[in-house]
Formats: sequence, structure tokens, C-alpha cells
Amino acid sequence: MSKIQEIQSYLQQQQVDVAFITTPDNVFYVSGFHSNPHERLLGVAVFKEAEPFLICPKMEVPDAQAAGWTYDTIGHQDTENAMELLAQAIQDRIGQPATFAIEKAHLTVERLEALQQSFAATHFVRLDEKINAMRVIKDESELEKLRKAAELADYAVEIGCKEIAEGKTEMEILTAIESAIQEKGCKMSFDTMVLSGPKTASPHGVPGARKIEKGDMILFDLGVIYDGYCSDITRTVAFGEPSDAQKEVYNTVLAANMNAIAAVKPGVRAMDLDKIARDTITAAGYGDYFTHRLGHGLGISVHEFPSITGTNDMVMTEGMVFTIEPGVYKADITGVRIEDDVVVTKDGVEVLTKFTKELIIL
Amino acid sequence: MSKIQEIQSYLQQQQVDVAFITTPDNVFYVSGFHSNPHERLLGVAVFKEAEPFLICPKMEVPDAQAAGWTYDTIGHQDTENAMELLAQAIQDRIGQPATFAIEKAHLTVERLEALQQSFAATHFVRLDEKINAMRVIKDESELEKLRKAAELADYAVEIGCKEIAEGKTEMEILTAIESAIQEKGCKMSFDTMVLSGPKTASPHGVPGARKIEKGDMILFDLGVIYDGYCSDITRTVAFGEPSDAQKEVYNTVLAANMNAIAAVKPGVRAMDLDKIARDTITAAGYGDYFTHRLGHGLGISVHEFPSITGTNDMVMTEGMVFTIEPGVYKADITGVRIEDDVVVTKDGVEVLTKFTKELIIL
Repeated sequence: MSKIQEIQSYLQQQQVDVAFITTPDNVFYVSGFHSNPHERLLGVAVFKEAEPFLICPKMEVPDAQAAGWTYDTIGHQDTENAMELLAQAIQDRIGQPATFAIEKAHLTVERLEALQQSFAATHFVRLDEKINAMRVIKDESELEKLRKAAELADYAVEIGCKEIAEGKTEMEILTAIESAIQEKGCKMSFDTMVLSGPKTASPHGVPGARKIEKGDMILFDLGVIYDGYCSDITRTVAFGEPSDAQKEVYNTVLAANMNAIAAVKPGVRAMDLDKIARDTITAAGYGDYFTHRLGHGLGISVHEFPSITGTNDMVMTEGMVFTIEPGVYKADITGVRIEDDVVVTKDGVEVLTKFTKELIIL
Repeated sequence: MSKIQEIQSYLQQQQVDVAFITTPDNVFYVSGFHSNPHERLLGVAVFKEAEPFLICPKMEVPDAQAAGWTYDTIGHQDTENAMELLAQAIQDRIGQPATFAIEKAHLTVERLEALQQSFAATHFVRLDEKINAMRVIKDESELEKLRKAAELADYAVEIGCKEIAEGKTEMEILTAIESAIQEKGCKMSFDTMVLSGPKTASPHGVPGARKIEKGDMILFDLGVIYDGYCSDITRTVAFGEPSDAQKEVYNTVLAANMNAIAAVKPGVRAMDLDKIARDTITAAGYGDYFTHRLGHGLGISVHEFPSITGTNDMVMTEGMVFTIEPGVYKADITGVRIEDDVVVTKDGVEVLTKFTKELIIL
């Protein structure tokens, strides 16, 4: 069953007349067409009975068709009111809908108000949970792309390690990594992070002109997009012999990473995984320095469901893909984060990122 | 007057109790803190009378302060309900607001519904037009950054031209450009476009493994961020002697670009500029192949107000910055787009991008 058909049968079950999908990654998921036209309208309308259509900027219509979208494509020009075109196209197919599903976590208030102007008596309901539930379980063709994306992330870290040398800047190393990935015809899935020395202690630090020195630890956080699917890896390596305190932090984070991964299987809850990693770090005395969630879902988006936090009681099931990325950020010692991408399998876990986690000393 | 003070005095005039700014670029504009924490809540609350505050993920609190934000910063953790924290912080300062301004073109339906749960009797109004009106006029310090960003864009095109050689792929040229900009410690403002041969005819084409051949035209569309401000330039060059038909397309687009630029001054309307360029192209017989608006505003965002379309009757005033980017996309001849960044001055125009527009034949 195609994604469109799955949504259609959901609309039939729920007695919803139309769904309008607007998150660019969800548009890609249901249509195969990847685009982010910024402030311009992009969306897929799926109906309980009528044929779906895609609406996008007029100049992208050929791209949508080339991406394999075979239903109607409505192009809008900058001189047109795209929301009115949308409402008209819905009206043409089914008249005034009684119930209309939207992505409330994505659709703006302005666009909802525009729809309400056209459909004053319509009841607007959430589509978010349905699409999240679909996307959270990856099928084999999606897993295959995620494996390739992870392989490319491993390769990118390998390049980064090779580039480390005294006096090189973080940006120079970053550039070498990104060039190597671009040469493979791929793009990074988010802004690559190369942080050195004290900057490793900033979970959201920005790479810059700082020069690598002997004794630095260096943190790589990066990912690659393969055929629309993202990887996300973090490794922390040492340039020169690390101090005992640095080794202790490293080993603590590594143990947290491995303990959490070992617990991944169908039936475990997201919060259990977060707790296992957090308990490991707390027992070692660094609990106050693990300042973020354990991980996040991964797929078409580099951050998606499920969120692996201490309060999420979602039960993991086969086909879910997410990161496990404990970290300790201790400015006076070092920051360390070790992140892998994992899949919940029928009875356990498959780790997609394979770059070594033994402490590399360069 | 600071941006915060300007919003405060607007709230006083309009009798609005609180404004919540959520577009990441607008948060940067009013706070100096640039961040895009994806699905996590980021925003600045400004009050008619009380002190403003910023709310962001807890791990970014130090970054916000380092960026110069001196008012309260509320950090939220992944385990907390950020919208409840926000409502509570507003409640603590002013109780239940009667009128609450939001960015309706950015805030999601889900977040508005969360606010409505906390503030059931509150009337929600638009803040969008006020912030747009502020951002659309650039002050001298902003113009200085835009000039530097444009200079870097010129440099990037120069690198691109130097890299062109038979057999090189689009991606190789793109990588060389991005590396050169990264070495200057800067980032691109959007995905760099290097398109060659027939691919120039796709306004939103994607660079790839296509190898440059003698006789290709090559289109660069790229921009650089300098200190938070974006440039955006397009140049189309020839590798080997172009055909007469290609030259005619080039000269048509160039004339459209220059005619529109010559008309920029206070008092002209956006639609007049679009018409001047479109008329030039139509007169040459290519009207059907100029398939997009003439340009878009430029500043903290690479696409912002004003939109230079055939239907926008906005009157240009001093300090507005936008692109002029006519194009003709004729698959059987070539695509050509020529884009400059311009500022409306007291009595005319300043062109920020200075890379030559004479047809370069390499």
C-alpha cells in the first residue's frame, strides 16, 4: 500500500474528508518530491475518496513530476494567492469539507485562518499523530538508505581524523570533510561540527578559526543525506595523550552509550533508554553535565520522532530508528559526546554507525 | 532606540499587552541571538510595560547571553512542556493578557492552541506587519554587513569562474567555491547552485555529477552570510564561444536586469520594477520563459520582504534591500539569470554585487 493509500484509508476510518500535508519532509514521504520553497506554499491534499493533488510553486511543477508524482500538480505563481487556489481546488473536488485534517505542528496560524475563510463551517483536526506513526516505522527500503547514509557518516569521521594536525583550524578540517562528501555527490544533513579543546564542552558550539593544539580533544558531530535519508554521528578523539580525567569522562560516556544500546529492543520505552544512560553517567559523578536528552528519531529528517527523553513513555517497536548520544560537558576537563544511529530489530538492535568507539589517540 | 524598545512603544500605541516573536531571524533581529533549535521552542516575549524575556532550550542559555542578550533568559529542557513554561512566565509578569500579538505567518496552530489553553479569554492579533516594516528598512550598520556579504558573493563567483574546466563536474566547482568561503570563516546563505549546459534552464535545478563541456553555459547562484546578513548573486557565463541564440538570450536578460536597476529609487513600486524587466524580456520574444518574480528582499533572511512581483504595489523607500534577478529559461537554447543585490538610496540605487555582467567567455 502506498503512503497515499494508507492516508486515504485512515481518512475513511476517521470520517475525515481531506488531509493537507505541508511539512516538506512529509510531502517527500508521501509524494517522493523533496522541496523546501521557503515561504511559498507546498503541500499534498489527500481525500477520503477523490484523487490527491500536490500544490507547489509553478516553476517546481516539472521537478515534482520528474520525482515520480503522477497525480495532479497545481502550480502557483508569485502573483497568485496560493491559499485561495488551494481552497478552490479542494472545493472543486469535494465541495465544502465537514472535517479537514492539517499538520497542526507545522501549519501556520495564517494559513489556517486562510482556510477558515474559505471553509467557515469546517472542523479542523490534527493529522500529525497519523503521519508521525507512519514515519516512525521504517520499511526495508528506508533502512537500506539509512545504512548507506550511516556508512557515509563513518567515512566523513574517518576523513576528519586524517585531517587533524597541529595548527590546522576547525574550519579547515570541516571543509575537508564536507568536500569529501560532496565529491561523493552527497550533502551533509546538518551543519557539520568540528570543535576542539575547551569548545568540546559546548553542546551547540560553532566551529571557527581555533587552531588544533597538542592535548586537544576534538569532537565531530555530522551527518550525511543519502537518497533523502539522514545519518547523524558524533565521535570525540584525542590529539596527543589525554589526561586521566579526560579518559574518565570518555569512558563514562562510552559506557552510557553502550549500556543504552544494549537495552534497545522491542518493548523498551524511550524513557528507559534515557535513564540507563543517565544512571551510568550519574553513578560516575557527571550527572549534572549531561544536559540534553539521550537521542532523537532519524529518517527523512535529522530530528524526528521518537524523542528519547526521560519523560517519553513511548514503547520502542521494530523498525524505529533513532540516535543514542550521551554527552558530558565539563569545561575544566573536556566535552565528550558519542553518538550512534540504531534500528530496533525484531529482537534487538542494529547499529548503523560503525566507526570505532575505542578512544582514538592521534 | 533598540529594536525591543521600538516594539514596546508599538505595543503601547496599539494597546497590546504582550508580543511573542518566534521566527528565528526575527529573534536574532530583536535579541542579537541567532539560533534555530528546530522543533524546540525559541522566542522573545516583549511586554507593553514589563521587562522582556527570551525562552530557548536550556543548553543554549549561555549562547544567548554570550550573544549580548541582557534581559532574562528562560531555558527549557526536553523533559519540560516549553509552552506551559512560556505561559507561566507571561502570567507571572502580567497575569492574563487581554491582547497578545503573535507572528501568524510563523507560529504554528499547535502552539497557538497551547497559548489559548492558558489564556482562554485572550485576543490574539498579528505582529507580522510591524516586524516586517521594521526589518524592511536597513540601517547603516545593517547595510555595512550586506556590503561585506555581497563582496564575498562576488569573490565566490570569481572562484567559480576560475575553477571551470573541461571534464570538471558541477559538484567539484561547487565544492571549490564553498571551501574558499569556509576558509574565510563564512557560510553560504543557501545551497549553492552550479548548473551547466541544459541544466541552466531549470530555475531550481540541483548541481550534480554532470561534467562541463565546451559550449556549455554555466549558471552560478549563491550567497554568503556575513555577521548574520545574507547576499544572493547569480551570474551566467560561457565556456567556449556561445551561439548567437545564446548571446541574444543573455543580452535580453542583461537588459532586463539593468533596466530594472536603473528604475530603482524611492517612490517606485515593486510591481513597476517587475514590469520593466518583464516588458524588456517580452519585447525580445522571451516573455513566456521568465517564469518567476523579479526579486525578493534580502537581509537577515535570504528571502524576506519586500517581494518584487507584478502584483505588489508596495512603494520602495530608502533603506530597502532586495534582489533584481530576471531570467529566461529556454531548454533548447540556454537558461540565463543575472541577479544583483540593490539598496534604495535617498535618490536612487546602490548596487551591492559588483561582479561584472559583461558576458564572460572562458
